[in-house]
Amino acid sequence: MHIASGKGFNAVAAFQPENVFYLTNFWGEAIAICSNDRTTLIVPKLEASRAQQDSKDCELIFSDRGLPVIDTFIDVIKGKVVCADYADYSTVEAIQTKSSEKKFIVNVDTLLEGRMIKDENEIYAIAKAAKVLDDLYEICTHEVKIGLSERALQAKIIFEAMQMGAYAACHKSTLNPLIIASGPNGALPHAQVSDRKFVDGDMVVIDLTLRYASYIADATRTFALGRTTSETKEAYELVKQSQQLGIDCVEEGVACEEIDKECRSLISDGGYGSQFIHSTGHGIGLDVHEPPWLRTPNRQVLERNMAITIEPGIYLQGKFGIRIEDSMIVDNAHARNLNAFTKDLLVLD
Amino acid sequence: MHIASGKGFNAVAAFQPENVFYLTNFWGEAIAICSNDRTTLIVPKLEASRAQQDSKDCELIFSDRGLPVIDTFIDVIKGKVVCADYADYSTVEAIQTKSSEKKFIVNVDTLLEGRMIKDENEIYAIAKAAKVLDDLYEICTHEVKIGLSERALQAKIIFEAMQMGAYAACHKSTLNPLIIASGPNGALPHAQVSDRKFVDGDMVVIDLTLRYASYIADATRTFALGRTTSETKEAYELVKQSQQLGIDCVEEGVACEEIDKECRSLISDGGYGSQFIHSTGHGIGLDVHEPPWLRTPNRQVLERNMAITIEPGIYLQGKFGIRIEDSMIVDNAHARNLNAFTKDLLVLD
Repeated sequence: MHIASGKGFNAVAAFQPENVFYLTNFWGEAIAICSNDRTTLIVPKLEASRAQQDSKDCELIFSDRGLPVIDTFIDVIKGKVVCADYADYSTVEAIQTKSSEKKFIVNVDTLLEGRMIKDENEIYAIAKAAKVLDDLYEICTHEVKIGLSERALQAKIIFEAMQMGAYAACHKSTLNPLIIASGPNGALPHAQVSDRKFVDGDMVVIDLTLRYASYIADATRTFALGRTTSETKEAYELVKQSQQLGIDCVEEGVACEEIDKECRSLISDGGYGSQFIHSTGHGIGLDVHEPPWLRTPNRQVLERNMAITIEPGIYLQGKFGIRIEDSMIVDNAHARNLNAFTKDLLVLD
Repeated sequence: MHIASGKGFNAVAAFQPENVFYLTNFWGEAIAICSNDRTTLIVPKLEASRAQQDSKDCELIFSDRGLPVIDTFIDVIKGKVVCADYADYSTVEAIQTKSSEKKFIVNVDTLLEGRMIKDENEIYAIAKAAKVLDDLYEICTHEVKIGLSERALQAKIIFEAMQMGAYAACHKSTLNPLIIASGPNGALPHAQVSDRKFVDGDMVVIDLTLRYASYIADATRTFALGRTTSETKEAYELVKQSQQLGIDCVEEGVACEEIDKECRSLISDGGYGSQFIHSTGHGIGLDVHEPPWLRTPNRQVLERNMAITIEPGIYLQGKFGIRIEDSMIVDNAHARNLNAFTKDLLVLD
């Protein structure tokens, strides 16, 4: 709320479930409005009991879905200058048309700025999620075998994750919950899990993004199966060094683009610059991808208790891909890496 | 495209992954623009190879993320009157500010109208997804036991679903992929899966929403565990009759609200009207919930080859919930029910 106040707002409205949760502790279909003296949660009838159980220190208003919700919302924000999160255009239009005061501003960044710095409980949840990922990579070392399909491995990993209380993080742009990309599929950073079976000589990219107690951790390991070549080994070592260099650069006050540049220049020097086709990392928390963005240009500096990933990669179309990624917390003088699973090249069979 | 033409547009733009897929056959991070003579797909570099592999009859443009994508988009739509899908407010604002022509209109309904009527391939995919749900309910009859936790059952069901090539449908308002709500949890229509273990006397609501070959099917069964009471049996029979009545009403030309009213009045006559706290059904397809909406008021009429659910329920706070749901296709004179698993009350132990 103090970030919003600094920008001249006296209320924050959240339409996105992760922001509603951030303001109220309730994850569901609802709108949350937070001002200096109170937090109000507008929920449809079918979510009433859940909202009562889960929300903390909120005034609850029950409303029918659709237009009645908009009317209730306009009533709650009366007289306030409101900063709203990422809302769909039609809803914003309806509110601005119906509300006479024109003090309803969409400013996605305000809530995201607040969410960037994690508190103790949030760090605990992200660390737990990261620990689940480590445990799953340990399971992968026993499960990944020549002849197993990407799909069967995905089913096994999700099963184990759910038994541990974690679950897949929804990301609308990818249909499958995980990225398990073997051989040539690994060259597609957002590959869909397929029925391809692992063969001798594969590099297998396993990118696990899971939610635990509402919070996300994100890590990637690339395993070798059977034969390796000097090309796969060289590319692997380069990604590994690049990722370690990125981690070593993390400290309070460093600009996001500095880390991206460091990681990228090492890979470029190794001759694979044009094969590193995405940014170096991103923030994590209630969302899979959130600020800060570790890319160039981005002069934003890292601050203590930000949660970020570092994940350089090399993608050789039609051949293989390699990516190594950890989730970490920014400390004053270094990164606190939440993933402990080895990044040495493991050759399985 | 002909729906958009009828409204005076000569291009349709899709920002949402499901609409991008609908226009291009590519599911990922991209913008699709469809006009009478061509379909253009704008994708970031990291999605280039996948877009090339999966898209059909598209001109591909590769662009960096962020502002460059907006600039590319404005270039593509030059001279066109564009109808855009559900886009976030900031993106729309950026396009309208940068584009001089002011012929970029957000009209969510146009693409959804097109998507409402399913073609043969879409019906095939939804039917396959529904068949997976039937198979999973069969598995439930062996797995659901006193002492098993909701979470363990969820892990088992998702594992089996993924082995069959289906996967959870992301729905941002719920964190868990499935709804498995036992005993008092069943009274929450959108209950989160918990560590609660099934006990003698439970009613267990199992709402499975899964995606197969990009398309969604959605079904719910409620099982009894051990002892039943006259109250649970009476409520179950009422929901079952209400759901069958709804199915019997389905035919081309019937208004959505008629079905909602029929289902609701039977439950009201049984004395549980105020405990049926959601609408009767919704469209399914590329999204979990899409038009047509089976609620009151809604005068929209059912048309041949719409895909819908019918899912009345009764929720007794603190006690139990009951919901029965099938996925079906609207035929000219009846509903073609895609779910064959029994709706008789199964008492497991």
